[in-house]
Amino acid sequence: MPIQILGLAGLPEVRPGDDLAALIRAAARGVEDGAIVVIAQKIVSKAEGAIVDLRSIVPSDFATDWGARYGKDPRLIELVLRESRRIVRMDRGVLITETRHGFITANAGVDQSNVPGEHFATTLPSDPDASAGRIQAALGCGAVIVSDTFGRPWRDGLVNVAIGVAGIEPLDDLRGSNDWVGRRLEGTKLAVADELAAAAGLAMPKSAGIPVACITGFNWTRASGSARSLLRPPDTDLFR
Amino acid sequence: MPIQILGLAGLPEVRPGDDLAALIRAAARGVEDGAIVVIAQKIVSKAEGAIVDLRSIVPSDFATDWGARYGKDPRLIELVLRESRRIVRMDRGVLITETRHGFITANAGVDQSNVPGEHFATTLPSDPDASAGRIQAALGCGAVIVSDTFGRPWRDGLVNVAIGVAGIEPLDDLRGSNDWVGRRLEGTKLAVADELAAAAGLAMPKSAGIPVACITGFNWTRASGSARSLLRPPDTDLFR
Repeated sequence: MPIQILGLAGLPEVRPGDDLAALIRAAARGVEDGAIVVIAQKIVSKAEGAIVDLRSIVPSDFATDWGARYGKDPRLIELVLRESRRIVRMDRGVLITETRHGFITANAGVDQSNVPGEHFATTLPSDPDASAGRIQAALGCGAVIVSDTFGRPWRDGLVNVAIGVAGIEPLDDLRGSNDWVGRRLEGTKLAVADELAAAAGLAMPKSAGIPVACITGFNWTRASGSARSLLRPPDTDLFR
Repeated sequence: MPIQILGLAGLPEVRPGDDLAALIRAAARGVEDGAIVVIAQKIVSKAEGAIVDLRSIVPSDFATDWGARYGKDPRLIELVLRESRRIVRMDRGVLITETRHGFITANAGVDQSNVPGEHFATTLPSDPDASAGRIQAALGCGAVIVSDTFGRPWRDGLVNVAIGVAGIEPLDDLRGSNDWVGRRLEGTKLAVADELAAAAGLAMPKSAGIPVACITGFNWTRASGSARSLLRPPDTDLFR
């Protein structure tokens, strides 16, 4: 049985207060019981009202200075700082921060793409695991992953990763099991939720308006789960 | 049409000199013309004889000292150094280097898992794009990706990524195109080959002995391509 990934077209523009599970169910005409539903952060943020009117933001001198140096909107910089608990790198116009959740990403996930109106930007959902949990409960599907596209050190291009999960253990810990020649696999944990998010990313390109994908045929470890498991413990991270 | 990912079971243990394309064709009983075939680096290395007998290695004092401090085989450390052109981090027993190809990964991709015999380790293929090209030509499929599982800064767990490609442009450059509300997508390049490798990783877990997966139903940019496109230009990398 192959793994199947189906992008879900036909969702309307999502607005604050919308019932995402109902919109997905209507567009999918039913979601398989055992499906893993991957949902772009952008529509989760919109449904939850995690949209900021930049006209409401008074940038600090710090944000104004940085914006002026690199031709960026100082209100966006200020919003990034508000969403961050730590600046990881701030150089050459690039602002990489640790979000309140612990994700390390460019601009703390603040984004204007696919947001109507020039004065608005979305922020990440305040608790993406909880968002995933609510949608999973309402859909009755196997698991839900809330995803976002992140850049990486060393490798060019963005990849879709998991920032919230429900119904799945995001790490598949093979330590202690054997490889197929019978040697113990040392240090091997697979980031299954990130591979699922990346796979879904193939079916939901940003330019096509497909913010949801359903994955079937994949056998995963069912658990309540949390995307916090995907945060590398600081003591094993040489690039903080 | 959904994207489909099918792991290929039933490949024999691969040995130096084996014709991988012939083995894949036999196990798959035919590969679709338009399929993207993702192949684990491990069997490419084995087929190409990129296997080192550790008994042939005389470790340097530097490798011996590091091995002794962290309980690691100094011959493996020496092999990692030989495969590297630069050490990126060397701390807490972890050795992250830039390989001769330019990939930044733990232990330069030197690995003993799924290699029979306690004295042997595989190294990465010397030219993974060329490996992919030869296999693609012999299989006559749409594209070939040679993949390996890499760790990441900040995020726990390994994900499968592309280290060699043929028949595909690994980056999908959306800069200059519009999002679905009509705003130009700035700075958006998707690492499609890495998302394909990650998707394939779901069908080829290390413990199951499935080193090949076929992906169909995905529409990609056909090009001769090189995985070197996935190497982040040093001037945009704040974590070298």
